[in-house]
Amino acid sequence: MSEILVGVSTSSYAQTNREPLDVLIGAGVKVVKNPFGRRLTEDEAATFLADKHGLIAGLEPLNQRVISSAPHLKAIARVGIGMSNIDMKFADKRGIRVSNTPDGPTNAVAELTAGAAIALGRGLVSANSHLHAGEWVKAIGSGLDGRSVLFVGYGRIGRRTAELMSPFGIRVFVVDPVLEQGDLAAGETLVTLDEGLKQADVVSLHASGEEVILGPEQFDIMKRGALLLNSARGELVDENSLLQALDDGVLKGAWFDAFWREPYAGPLLGRNDVILTPHLGTYSEQCRLSMELSAAKNLLNDLGLSA
Amino acid sequence: MSEILVGVSTSSYAQTNREPLDVLIGAGVKVVKNPFGRRLTEDEAATFLADKHGLIAGLEPLNQRVISSAPHLKAIARVGIGMSNIDMKFADKRGIRVSNTPDGPTNAVAELTAGAAIALGRGLVSANSHLHAGEWVKAIGSGLDGRSVLFVGYGRIGRRTAELMSPFGIRVFVVDPVLEQGDLAAGETLVTLDEGLKQADVVSLHASGEEVILGPEQFDIMKRGALLLNSARGELVDENSLLQALDDGVLKGAWFDAFWREPYAGPLLGRNDVILTPHLGTYSEQCRLSMELSAAKNLLNDLGLSA
Repeated sequence: MSEILVGVSTSSYAQTNREPLDVLIGAGVKVVKNPFGRRLTEDEAATFLADKHGLIAGLEPLNQRVISSAPHLKAIARVGIGMSNIDMKFADKRGIRVSNTPDGPTNAVAELTAGAAIALGRGLVSANSHLHAGEWVKAIGSGLDGRSVLFVGYGRIGRRTAELMSPFGIRVFVVDPVLEQGDLAAGETLVTLDEGLKQADVVSLHASGEEVILGPEQFDIMKRGALLLNSARGELVDENSLLQALDDGVLKGAWFDAFWREPYAGPLLGRNDVILTPHLGTYSEQCRLSMELSAAKNLLNDLGLSA
Repeated sequence: MSEILVGVSTSSYAQTNREPLDVLIGAGVKVVKNPFGRRLTEDEAATFLADKHGLIAGLEPLNQRVISSAPHLKAIARVGIGMSNIDMKFADKRGIRVSNTPDGPTNAVAELTAGAAIALGRGLVSANSHLHAGEWVKAIGSGLDGRSVLFVGYGRIGRRTAELMSPFGIRVFVVDPVLEQGDLAAGETLVTLDEGLKQADVVSLHASGEEVILGPEQFDIMKRGALLLNSARGELVDENSLLQALDDGVLKGAWFDAFWREPYAGPLLGRNDVILTPHLGTYSEQCRLSMELSAAKNLLNDLGLSA
């Protein structure tokens, strides 16, 4: 068998930990890194792929023209979930296998959500700001113990978040159109959105899609003093209703890691009752390594090699 | 039997939740609240206790003179752990039973510690500051998954913290002079302080006492880039060595909730790599309720009544 060439276009691949690279090399392939150290343009991608059999892919354009320039290409492995940069139909037509790493973000997003829930409830961020300003302000916060947490969307990330928060003593309520009570574990309760919002102390969004889930009608029925966590999508919450709910005390606080438009520069910036992070859900060393390793294994598998 | 009078001197008692008061009243005692709504002085305490059989106690002075003014007093129940305000020897001589609520803070301190570990590792506080200032700064953080966490002191709070952090995937290392490996659960490793510091990614202090545990020699051997969590006592860490360790990159960051002197106003205030909270460990609604309920039950038990 002649040499198998694998291109790695994601410039940060194996930079903090070379294990994913070792997995590829250990399987006998020759690895060629993206020579530009940044996202490839269409022309660069076409040139880069001319002699490659496999690709560890980032978000560079992998359209019909680029794929047509890669006569030997058999497999594309995305490091991440999104595949909107890939012409899936054309890849399929050409017999190229395409994979992604759907499990990669689960743990990291769930972890950050649990941390944000505690930080928000216990007032860690505001207390830290006060103390750095020389003000010793002790306020009694709200812990997770005994609180009702409503998970809106109960796929991988929602479930993992509940798993991490359960030892703290939360009661788990779930809204998910594709689930039935029998799909849930003991102690978890399936509710409608309205039922859930009326009793939840904490609402954590884990839904996909672009439609608004929390608008004026929803904030109207929410339990007063609730906390809102959004690690999913900015579009799920109507911003004007959110601001009103914060002003009215319906929401005591919120954490947003995902926004209508990123980088975000809207009215939430001016509010002390909202913790804001710049879409950091997947930004952990562990998450990066996990996705890089999965992509290496997916690629080798799709090339008919064992990891 | 004549009426049993119970004084409540802690002014915040049952303010957010009246359940503790209901427990006392339900047992048939007459409850009299501190009329001043603040900590009682010695004179006020002496007057307040003149006709009481039991006391739900705060931090007012309960010295020999005050106790001598309370001929009917049979039981004192502290809401909290510290009992340095009570002349225990004299109370014992007078046959007065004294209790505290040692389990009360466990959950709340452990929860805040776990939240601070995530916030610190994932850069939540600094990212929030940047974003509120209009800067969209995405930095890759360090999650808990796979990290070695050294618990220095493994009593109630240390153990509970480990329990809460374990589902996140940590490896538990323990330093505790009164424990043997056989006292630990499967997967937990007893180490010496030096062994632990050499390999820990996160060091969490849960020791009692006033002696310095982390000084120059200890920071010298710590794994580079570690995080330090201190919810226990400020005195456990030598401040100059701490500042040096942060400057040298031995420590990547730290969280302090306990300080050498409180309110704290020292050099940590000026550092962005340190999260500071004003001794909020026990400041949660749940913790307050739990301690108040325990004190009510302790008092009734010591008065020979059932809760």
